[in-house]
Amino acid sequence: MNSFGTLFKVTLYGESHQPAIGVVIDGVPPGIAINHDKIKADLYNRNPRDIGTTPRKEADLYAITSGVFNGKTTGSPLHVMIENTNTKSKDYEALKTHYRPGHSDFVAKKKYQGFHDYRGGGRFSGRLTAPLVIAGQIAKQCLPFTFHSKLKQVGDCRDLNHLDDYLTKKQEEGDSVGGVVSLRVEGLPVGLGEPMFEKLTSHVAKILFSVPSVKGVEFGSGFEKAHLKGSEFNDTIIDEIGTTKTNHSGGVSGGVSNGNPLMIQVMVKPTSSIAKTQHTYDEQTSDVQTLNIKGRHDTAHIRRIPIVLENVTSIALLDLFLQYKAYQLNEK
Amino acid sequence: MNSFGTLFKVTLYGESHQPAIGVVIDGVPPGIAINHDKIKADLYNRNPRDIGTTPRKEADLYAITSGVFNGKTTGSPLHVMIENTNTKSKDYEALKTHYRPGHSDFVAKKKYQGFHDYRGGGRFSGRLTAPLVIAGQIAKQCLPFTFHSKLKQVGDCRDLNHLDDYLTKKQEEGDSVGGVVSLRVEGLPVGLGEPMFEKLTSHVAKILFSVPSVKGVEFGSGFEKAHLKGSEFNDTIIDEIGTTKTNHSGGVSGGVSNGNPLMIQVMVKPTSSIAKTQHTYDEQTSDVQTLNIKGRHDTAHIRRIPIVLENVTSIALLDLFLQYKAYQLNEK
Amino acid sequence: MNSFGTLFKVTLYGESHQPAIGVVIDGVPPGIAINHDKIKADLYNRNPRDIGTTPRKEADLYAITSGVFNGKTTGSPLHVMIENTNTKSKDYEALKTHYRPGHSDFVAKKKYQGFHDYRGGGRFSGRLTAPLVIAGQIAKQCLPFTFHSKLKQVGDCRDLNHLDDYLTKKQEEGDSVGGVVSLRVEGLPVGLGEPMFEKLTSHVAKILFSVPSVKGVEFGSGFEKAHLKGSEFNDTIIDEIGTTKTNHSGGVSGGVSNGNPLMIQVMVKPTSSIAKTQHTYDEQTSDVQTLNIKGRHDTAHIRRIPIVLENVTSIALLDLFLQYKAYQLNEK
Amino acid sequence: MNSFGTLFKVTLYGESHQPAIGVVIDGVPPGIAINHDKIKADLYNRNPRDIGTTPRKEADLYAITSGVFNGKTTGSPLHVMIENTNTKSKDYEALKTHYRPGHSDFVAKKKYQGFHDYRGGGRFSGRLTAPLVIAGQIAKQCLPFTFHSKLKQVGDCRDLNHLDDYLTKKQEEGDSVGGVVSLRVEGLPVGLGEPMFEKLTSHVAKILFSVPSVKGVEFGSGFEKAHLKGSEFNDTIIDEIGTTKTNHSGGVSGGVSNGNPLMIQVMVKPTSSIAKTQHTYDEQTSDVQTLNIKGRHDTAHIRRIPIVLENVTSIALLDLFLQYKAYQLNEK
Repeated sequence: MNSFGTLFKVTLYGESHQPAIGVVIDGVPPGIAINHDKIKADLYNRNPRDIGTTPRKEADLYAITSGVFNGKTTGSPLHVMIENTNTKSKDYEALKTHYRPGHSDFVAKKKYQGFHDYRGGGRFSGRLTAPLVIAGQIAKQCLPFTFHSKLKQVGDCRDLNHLDDYLTKKQEEGDSVGGVVSLRVEGLPVGLGEPMFEKLTSHVAKILFSVPSVKGVEFGSGFEKAHLKGSEFNDTIIDEIGTTKTNHSGGVSGGVSNGNPLMIQVMVKPTSSIAKTQHTYDEQTSDVQTLNIKGRHDTAHIRRIPIVLENVTSIALLDLFLQYKAYQLNEK
Repeated sequence: MNSFGTLFKVTLYGESHQPAIGVVIDGVPPGIAINHDKIKADLYNRNPRDIGTTPRKEADLYAITSGVFNGKTTGSPLHVMIENTNTKSKDYEALKTHYRPGHSDFVAKKKYQGFHDYRGGGRFSGRLTAPLVIAGQIAKQCLPFTFHSKLKQVGDCRDLNHLDDYLTKKQEEGDSVGGVVSLRVEGLPVGLGEPMFEKLTSHVAKILFSVPSVKGVEFGSGFEKAHLKGSEFNDTIIDEIGTTKTNHSGGVSGGVSNGNPLMIQVMVKPTSSIAKTQHTYDEQTSDVQTLNIKGRHDTAHIRRIPIVLENVTSIALLDLFLQYKAYQLNEK
Repeated sequence: MNSFGTLFKVTLYGESHQPAIGVVIDGVPPGIAINHDKIKADLYNRNPRDIGTTPRKEADLYAITSGVFNGKTTGSPLHVMIENTNTKSKDYEALKTHYRPGHSDFVAKKKYQGFHDYRGGGRFSGRLTAPLVIAGQIAKQCLPFTFHSKLKQVGDCRDLNHLDDYLTKKQEEGDSVGGVVSLRVEGLPVGLGEPMFEKLTSHVAKILFSVPSVKGVEFGSGFEKAHLKGSEFNDTIIDEIGTTKTNHSGGVSGGVSNGNPLMIQVMVKPTSSIAKTQHTYDEQTSDVQTLNIKGRHDTAHIRRIPIVLENVTSIALLDLFLQYKAYQLNEK
Repeated sequence: MNSFGTLFKVTLYGESHQPAIGVVIDGVPPGIAINHDKIKADLYNRNPRDIGTTPRKEADLYAITSGVFNGKTTGSPLHVMIENTNTKSKDYEALKTHYRPGHSDFVAKKKYQGFHDYRGGGRFSGRLTAPLVIAGQIAKQCLPFTFHSKLKQVGDCRDLNHLDDYLTKKQEEGDSVGGVVSLRVEGLPVGLGEPMFEKLTSHVAKILFSVPSVKGVEFGSGFEKAHLKGSEFNDTIIDEIGTTKTNHSGGVSGGVSNGNPLMIQVMVKPTSSIAKTQHTYDEQTSDVQTLNIKGRHDTAHIRRIPIVLENVTSIALLDLFLQYKAYQLNEK
């Protein structure tokens, strides 16, 4: 349940305020030279200093404690660990009974019968995406594809040139926003994805929905273009390598990559923690009570999410790529 | 790759024009009385005679050849088989080299190195959803939940009272449409779904994207409401069982069911086969050639899809429900 | 639970007296020409007319209903089905409460809360090995290895030239025997098997123990040679391809194939059904009662088992071989 | 491949001379109070100071960095880490080309194309069993069963009262021994184990064979009793809870626990590293050369293995126990 993948498999552990979080990365081919600069760059993209993101500093210092020898992967699983430091745990006692709207406080308590670590979102914290970003960057280093991710819409702001002003205003209102992220991957061969249940769309969507705050995933022309007719939607194939004139299908036919760019959009809900006063049930008083969330939070955590979504996509694609390779050597 | 699930597991086989298609259903609890009327009703919903659906008759006569004894499940896997009859295979020779837009002809040929069964869409045929519907109905019979599915939008028609007229017109144009389907499941306990990678959203999305033509999945208020602010989106919890005033989260918090109705929307692309002349690459001439697809096809196969989506959702939910139950008995 | 394998996956269904038994075989590479003569030969080896085996005739007529087109595999899962005919079910009513020693009557009843199909051993019948033999033969057709299996010991008879006489005598006594089977596979490359938990030994042993009646598995020099010293047991490597002077390790080092022949011994318990009067608990009288099992049974079902063990081994090895191939193409 | 289990899942990482080894333990029920004294006792049993075991000190100091809050499990995965200290790596350079008999030096080099960490056995080191012991003890703390393990035979010494003298002699000879370990588990309910491929025997054997040096596994009366007749081997059931007069089946019928004690024997090969001069192929000279292994090694590492085998068995049993529980609540 905390593992993803068949040949390339990541196993994630950790809670926000426990000593450490980390990931075991199994199935990395031997001999890959790990590029730490690229890992650090991706971690920085997840943890920027932009307007609308929290000023709280996460150290993100990671250690690889196995699976790398003389700078190259050994074929054994990698273990990557990030210690949790600077966690202030005293603020969270109230959440045990006064459940924050939009958060998982209530469901975690019920599911784990009260034994969950409720501090800082515990198991459900967005902090868990840091080791995922590392695993995904390592996957990218094993793949001959190019990855792109960007914001498409933030709240009702679609002209991202005005994003800083827009977010400053939202922050002043004590509110938060979500939005839509676009992903684009180029260089896929024809044939990634296994029917019936491990289609590229199924496998990638599964891991995208594992990222906290993701509420929607679409490939190619999505919900917005649900009105198109077949004569408009069908992508005309124009050459022997399968290039299509349009790309409404987002690079996927029958659940399998068709050689055109993989195009994905992801809907991210607004940051749940807001400065504004909210109302929510309080078990201690058996009634709805006002709630004021303290601390400094992202106004738009979506600014930090594109690299997360890009990198979990690479995890799913490397897994499919290794499966694909198992069937490419035709001699017995 | 052709199996889905951990405790409740379905394994699907078959190709459109092979002797049979079917499904092995593993993990059904013993002692369930199989209700065949409900199975037939769901199969009928997948194979209606409405305007916009193909007049081609699929028999859908199924046999359960194992796992049921004296009308009740035995605890062993069920095997359900549907023989393929009335398949006309002669029409398909041209597809080997003249790839239909929107279909998987091209990717199947490349992926399977030309050995695939190309007749009638082969492995990629929508026909494979018939055994899935059966498996899903059996899952529903094991679950204390209620399931609803309906069309929300068909092409650019959102007032479904006018749907028959709308589709008659599209049919006359020789074109096709897709649209959006809504799902709603009630009765879920708090706690279905396993973080990190087997979240309810991840698991359900995975199987929804396995259904041919699905290109988008969203839970609760989706892409359309990506502009909402946190103060609007957050669902206020109003009582001790977790009821929320609104349901923007679609019944899922932190990837886990929160006790409110599960709300899903699914985007379905238009039927790929259309009567209109299209253009597409032809390997024999090494050039783009006109293509006219013969035969009678759905104008709006989306009319047949709601029950498919409803039932694959039940497959994923029974799997999560059994996992949930494994942790409910607290005495060792 | 009724599926085995990661890339090459078999899913088995059926009960002895249900309409059919069968297997879905997923992960077969496309383009394999299915050799039916070899399948029939293996089925015949499982169902011989030798002394000590039951004269009851099993038809073993199989149909492949998907995954093969023009005589070659398509890359989609194969479904192989054998109909159950000539099953006499009336003899089994007593077993519901008067549990046969050595059989699974008692555990099946408890595990499945009385809903199991108790006729002919139901899910636990050796009959289920017929589709496994087919799946295994297909696996052999995908592998460049050579497989050998033979009886090593039957009851206390180790000189198999006298086996027919020996078994005639046991049959006259109304008793049964088990014994030991030897397997040998040649042609494995160095490197099959994945540490830590998918070692060649782990993976092969798992499927060998799935075969009814198997109670012991050993690789190379087993229990009998547990007294050897390191200086005797260690196999001296004599050349650059890893050939060893002795083969105490049975072709496996660190759980991974080392290029020498894979050597396995399997211990098979005696046939549980015997003609002699036995004693066992009867739920109806709440006491131990005499039991006389009717019908004609194998005196030495072990004569039928070598081909089963050989073929399930090939299933496990093809799965590991495909995993191995996924890492052999080094260019990204 | 480095994960084991369906509901209770362990993922193991680490190499002998890398910074750390560890295990992620997923599926632990919430609310279990972790007993560290029991963990330490089991680690001590794996790392004793008895005659025949290496005087090299392994610290075995472990840290649990997630999944435990206020001394109890949270329902999230536990991560347990042991740092590797005091590793002397300089001794191992020669192994890159001069392969030790009985070790995995040769296969690791070929499998991982020379990129493996060859120091101290790397991924194949027995050191990896330390985190497995911890995971297994935690599994025992979740189970209502009692576990016993003991040596049955060490080399050709079957009277273990003389074991110290026997091993002192072997040590003086510069040789090593293996032997046989017995396991016994009591308290299992009827019904653990899932036919067909996740039988109790299959699942337990799989993890037992994952332990380095294990070459044979048998349940109940094994190879030694392969000569028994059915009338001798069949266990007479004597009461309504399934108690049998004898236990030749080792507590398992049809692959499922039958309520009687689970009895297992495991064959362990001799320690591969011996002080005596050996011969083996040397890639640098392209010829067989003498080899003298330096350092101090176990004469009988089998003295350290019973607790390892006992604890990996508990890992497999907890996994089956959780699966069993998923089907015990009959109300929907």
